Amino acid sequence: MDLAELINGIKPADAEWENRAWERLRSQIRPRDSLGQLEVIAARIAAICRTLEPTVSKKIIFTMAGDHGVAEEGVSAYPQEVTAQMVYSFIQGWATINVLAKHGGIDVRVVDMGVAADLPEEWNVVRRKIRKGTANFTKGPAMTREEAIQGIMAGAELVIDAVKRGGYQLIGTGDMGIANTTASAAIFSVLSGKAPSEVTGRGTGVDDEGLKRKIAVIERGIALNKPDPSDPIDVLSKVGGCEIAGLAGAVLGAAYAGCPVVCDGFIATAGALVAVRLAPAARDYLFISHRSQERGHGAMAEVIGIRPVLDLEMRLGEGTGAALAMPIIEAAVAVLKEVKTFEEAGVSKG
Amino acid sequence: MDLAELINGIKPADAEWENRAWERLRSQIRPRDSLGQLEVIAARIAAICRTLEPTVSKKIIFTMAGDHGVAEEGVSAYPQEVTAQMVYSFIQGWATINVLAKHGGIDVRVVDMGVAADLPEEWNVVRRKIRKGTANFTKGPAMTREEAIQGIMAGAELVIDAVKRGGYQLIGTGDMGIANTTASAAIFSVLSGKAPSEVTGRGTGVDDEGLKRKIAVIERGIALNKPDPSDPIDVLSKVGGCEIAGLAGAVLGAAYAGCPVVCDGFIATAGALVAVRLAPAARDYLFISHRSQERGHGAMAEVIGIRPVLDLEMRLGEGTGAALAMPIIEAAVAVLKEVKTFEEAGVSKG
Repeated sequence: MDLAELINGIKPADAEWENRAWERLRSQIRPRDSLGQLEVIAARIAAICRTLEPTVSKKIIFTMAGDHGVAEEGVSAYPQEVTAQMVYSFIQGWATINVLAKHGGIDVRVVDMGVAADLPEEWNVVRRKIRKGTANFTKGPAMTREEAIQGIMAGAELVIDAVKRGGYQLIGTGDMGIANTTASAAIFSVLSGKAPSEVTGRGTGVDDEGLKRKIAVIERGIALNKPDPSDPIDVLSKVGGCEIAGLAGAVLGAAYAGCPVVCDGFIATAGALVAVRLAPAARDYLFISHRSQERGHGAMAEVIGIRPVLDLEMRLGEGTGAALAMPIIEAAVAVLKEVKTFEEAGVSKG
Repeated sequence: MDLAELINGIKPADAEWENRAWERLRSQIRPRDSLGQLEVIAARIAAICRTLEPTVSKKIIFTMAGDHGVAEEGVSAYPQEVTAQMVYSFIQGWATINVLAKHGGIDVRVVDMGVAADLPEEWNVVRRKIRKGTANFTKGPAMTREEAIQGIMAGAELVIDAVKRGGYQLIGTGDMGIANTTASAAIFSVLSGKAPSEVTGRGTGVDDEGLKRKIAVIERGIALNKPDPSDPIDVLSKVGGCEIAGLAGAVLGAAYAGCPVVCDGFIATAGALVAVRLAPAARDYLFISHRSQERGHGAMAEVIGIRPVLDLEMRLGEGTGAALAMPIIEAAVAVLKEVKTFEEAGVSKG
């Protein structure tokens, strides 16, 4: 499969099933629309799965890792070696994503999309390394166009395989990569037309000085590389990252496979934005797990046009927001399937 | 036990354990404070349970039902018989609360605090009926002071028993009762000093005309009964309800027993507000599960001073918000206990 086949293979979700789901939801024993977003989610899952009896209990989060050449500009509070160290923590089950995923009954696969270090052979990671970290985008493009496409296809194929062969029914996306809020803010700035100063936050926690530097770095990267806002692959390759390519591909792959996908916070949503710009119908399959505390994420969700499920003031990444939102989506599906109607229960209507 | 003993038996949560929890959370392998409210919740649970190894997996929601004489003023979109019909649906496992509780691994007990109808003996409900529905508060007090206290004590004793003998570690509160948003708005108006027009919403879904009538009914009830804002029992008895008394008691009972308690939406939070006005230290044990779509609920949470965990635009009641928030609280506790520290994991600090 190539990128064009992937994109062309994505069909909108089924409005007819969505309507049928609303009909069922509105006949259940509670005041009309009184479950708010839970009903919106349930109806959308019905539209994606084309049934009033969907199942989303087999769940997996792909946590995609990559390094960023722009880290050498001092845009992160942490050194680059932390990316590989955190990958090790993920495969050992020590990190926040592991604990939250275990709590939610969710599998986690860690994908090396472009960690700078060579990861030891014995580490249980999925190896899809595009390159050993991107180039510093203040000095030239982060990667080639071919590399960006390779990253997208790798993410898409992993997810399609997880759905078709693995039997997964709900896909989550998460990230790890020192300096990747810088790349994500750059992508969002170009694709939204908003100034870097409007959409750039503190990431893992840079101070005021660091934030100024980060904004200036993004401005320089955009000025130098002149990414074309109408060409998401151009944007992704010039100021993006290997893991962001994989995260975009994961959303496309889920949509292609007809499976709902829940993105995490700022970085995973940047990947999702690239995906929906490449294939607008992919948006039908997408849930944004939470509104991140990272500056710009609320605006990113607005640009995509999807209300985040949770707002817990989190800004961690790893897929942690996705891990918390997935059980809510499962709960919404349970309501659709299991709550009785006024007629079935013999309750008087208002 | 009498009410004074209950109130005097409530001690603040332990700030020392809360500090220790923050120390542990901030030493774990992620950027400082990057889990936002999840860490706030985890630290508070540690303070309540006085340990860094709390367990909140044994969970129960008390759904308290009662009728309201004021229903005859046409303040609800549903007829009064729906209260008993929904109680029947709850014990049959047909309703939204049943489905969400099952999904979250939560037990549900339905309590008849004051349903107008005699519930058949074979129905599996906890029987604590104070009276067969309150009186219409536009014509006099909803109930006597003694009845209000009886309702509080019944709710408190149920919860204390659930913790001490039942081994429950996390308590949820929910409600059922046609016209109980009217009583809750009246309570909130008096206790907050806000006008009824500011804090009254559409409940199960009255139209514009119905909303105007509802506000006028509350204004008349307050003008006639003159509840004393400095005396929560006076307010509860004059414009409240039997289930709201039970819901207030449940919060007091949980605090007395040293157990975290999660209230549901508008009605359960009105009960919680009565509880924290009676015993300010009870607030330390309280979580507000979600920000309800019902007008006035956001302000109610602000008056109590607790940020709701979720905001899914729900306005159902029954304990449905509590059922969705409980797994988030469990997840927060899992993070506190299980995520490794930078030192343990060998990850470089920023």
